[in-house]
Amino acid sequence: MIYITRKEHFNAAHKLYKEEWTEEKNKAVFGKCSNPNWHGHNYDLFVTVKGEINPETGFVIDLKFLRDIINTEVIDKLDHKNINLDVDFMKGKMASTEVLAKEIWNQLVKPIEKEGAFLHSVKLFETENNFVEYFG
Amino acid sequence: MIYITRKEHFNAAHKLYKEEWTEEKNKAVFGKCSNPNWHGHNYDLFVTVKGEINPETGFVIDLKFLRDIINTEVIDKLDHKNINLDVDFMKGKMASTEVLAKEIWNQLVKPIEKEGAFLHSVKLFETENNFVEYFG
Amino acid sequence: MIYITRKEHFNAAHKLYKEEWTEEKNKAVFGKCSNPNWHGHNYDLFVTVKGEINPETGFVIDLKFLRDIINTEVIDKLDHKNINLDVDFMKGKMASTEVLAKEIWNQLVKPIEKEGAFLHSVKLFETENNFVEYFG
Amino acid sequence: MIYITRKEHFNAAHKLYKEEWTEEKNKAVFGKCSNPNWHGHNYDLFVTVKGEINPETGFVIDLKFLRDIINTEVIDKLDHKNINLDVDFMKGKMASTEVLAKEIWNQLVKPIEKEGAFLHSVKLFETENNFVEYFG
Amino acid sequence: MIYITRKEHFNAAHKLYKEEWTEEKNKAVFGKCSNPNWHGHNYDLFVTVKGEINPETGFVIDLKFLRDIINTEVIDKLDHKNINLDVDFMKGKMASTEVLAKEIWNQLVKPIEKEGAFLHSVKLFETENNFVEYFG
Amino acid sequence: MIYITRKEHFNAAHKLYKEEWTEEKNKAVFGKCSNPNWHGHNYDLFVTVKGEINPETGFVIDLKFLRDIINTEVIDKLDHKNINLDVDFMKGKMASTEVLAKEIWNQLVKPIEKEGAFLHSVKLFETENNFVEYFG
Repeated sequence: MIYITRKEHFNAAHKLYKEEWTEEKNKAVFGKCSNPNWHGHNYDLFVTVKGEINPETGFVIDLKFLRDIINTEVIDKLDHKNINLDVDFMKGKMASTEVLAKEIWNQLVKPIEKEGAFLHSVKLFETENNFVEYFG
Repeated sequence: MIYITRKEHFNAAHKLYKEEWTEEKNKAVFGKCSNPNWHGHNYDLFVTVKGEINPETGFVIDLKFLRDIINTEVIDKLDHKNINLDVDFMKGKMASTEVLAKEIWNQLVKPIEKEGAFLHSVKLFETENNFVEYFG
Repeated sequence: MIYITRKEHFNAAHKLYKEEWTEEKNKAVFGKCSNPNWHGHNYDLFVTVKGEINPETGFVIDLKFLRDIINTEVIDKLDHKNINLDVDFMKGKMASTEVLAKEIWNQLVKPIEKEGAFLHSVKLFETENNFVEYFG
Repeated sequence: MIYITRKEHFNAAHKLYKEEWTEEKNKAVFGKCSNPNWHGHNYDLFVTVKGEINPETGFVIDLKFLRDIINTEVIDKLDHKNINLDVDFMKGKMASTEVLAKEIWNQLVKPIEKEGAFLHSVKLFETENNFVEYFG
Repeated sequence: MIYITRKEHFNAAHKLYKEEWTEEKNKAVFGKCSNPNWHGHNYDLFVTVKGEINPETGFVIDLKFLRDIINTEVIDKLDHKNINLDVDFMKGKMASTEVLAKEIWNQLVKPIEKEGAFLHSVKLFETENNFVEYFG
Repeated sequence: MIYITRKEHFNAAHKLYKEEWTEEKNKAVFGKCSNPNWHGHNYDLFVTVKGEINPETGFVIDLKFLRDIINTEVIDKLDHKNINLDVDFMKGKMASTEVLAKEIWNQLVKPIEKEGAFLHSVKLFETENNFVEYFG
């Protein structure tokens, strides 16, 4: 078993808030992350895939395929978007890094299996000081 | 003459668009940066100050003062904000990295002179692949 | 289960030596790290916490609380200090990265549990080329 | 049990190709990585060792010994070399990051055990966007 | 006047040697950089352009155009290539970072002027510890 | 004219204080940087040299010579040392980043000229957020 990781990134706007709470309560719980007019981040995404080395190619997975999957399923939907408003798989969900990492996992797990490898982890940096890891 | 630089950062939302243009024209000129629902970045800001070394302290400028100036005049106004909507000194201006760097210079130049040093440059990273420098 | 990490840093002096050994023996075992007048580092500390996502907030743990715990229990005690001389929880212990990582774990494990999450790992960089991880 | 990691790096040329395939087939499978005249990388190598802390020294392993092992067994053989042509332990093998990480593990596992510690993982970056991890 | 920089990268093989010298003399002058079977690097390239801010767009230069110029004139010719053998504008020249930075400047200066801006500098990293800057 | 930069680093202890001031006054002026038992940093040093490209070698200066000069004149004297107590060229001077950068320049300027090149700048990072540049 060997593990290979591909890094991609996207730039997006979001805010942390619950529709059913007042602006005051949102501010009390989420602080400046609840700014009504949004804020944003350069997100870095590390997708780790595991499998056996194919003796023919020396690869676990062809990185071109992995990159294409990540771009089609995740980056194209998130890059230069508003996570709360523009992203189908985040509709009605909290736009926290934790929830976003988990939903990115859900986007990727099946397409990667179709390529004969297994998704091991999704690691998502919101800033260089905060990141989340999800292993399914 | 010696140069000292302090790095700070802020996370903000923005979009590139002109009110007087249609959404189509904005899209043609600014591409995905014109997404109507905004996107955002982790901006890194490097402020360089020049001056003589004070023989008493070994400092060009006390970095605590420099940090306070940058935070009061720039970071507090930009961090977790929408650059187009929430920032007084960007009202009615294009929210490009070039214009933002220039307006950050305008915010900083006088408060730094009051501390007896001179603003040399403002360097602003929008992503790790794109940055702007302004020297006044 | 999901994992969230917060990065903090501190700047400290230390040396590697055993009181009961001669300066020569200390030098033979610890090399330049035993310099009697100390040396120092910019330490980077990554604290990883695990737990379930709170459906109300989308959080494993409120990062403001995590940051406060790390600062109160660790950073305030180590930053701009001498690890061998100034730090209560390192008194009488070797100031190696391994021992320091383990003692930082001991500082953090209970306060994090009080917030309803679990400390998963402490990762401590002494330089960009050397780091230690401790999982309890 | 505690884990300590040492980072080293080497600069090398390689290409991805199978002798028994035509240049066209190599190009179809490996793309620009099969350029007949080679290309190259700055590889970053992270070697993680685990063990108990020696109460005498505060160390899992003396990093000078670990560095010497990595340099003798790996770096001296790979740095400023052609991975396909110049490296004894890669002869007849695909020069993919996966295979290289696995063979670096094979070079290191016994010499590290002789020092009384255990090799935990080899992490090899080919570029800042692609890396492989092998745990034996 | 304002300065904007775009970072791109390429992976290439090269060696330092003079055809008219013996292998011994090449080794004496260029050390391990003269390895006959090549070695290689992940090069990072920073291209800085200067000009006035266009009041209509807020741009010095449209970064999409700048990126296209850098890719067409430089990256496509260097990425996954052998600098000594495969690159038309390096034929018959030393493949040192200094010479390469200067020739990259020569590739870029006119196409950037056609876009109404001015090339200010080319900064080329061979490794994270060595880089060259050329200002024309 | 072309510019080449070499990065080196050293780990050292220091404090900011004036012998003739009380501990209280030192604390008032220098804050936590005046901790009596020292603190320390991983310093990163960038030395930039300028000159013409030697047509024979493609070099401004042989980086092996530049590295040797920096190590002999600067790194060996500072690495794993106490800047206030152990370093001949800092005796009796404030151990601020500004003063240290200037004195490193004084150490390097003549040995580099002997190699036929010119010292252009010394850039010294005390932390990733603070650095000083000196141009003579």
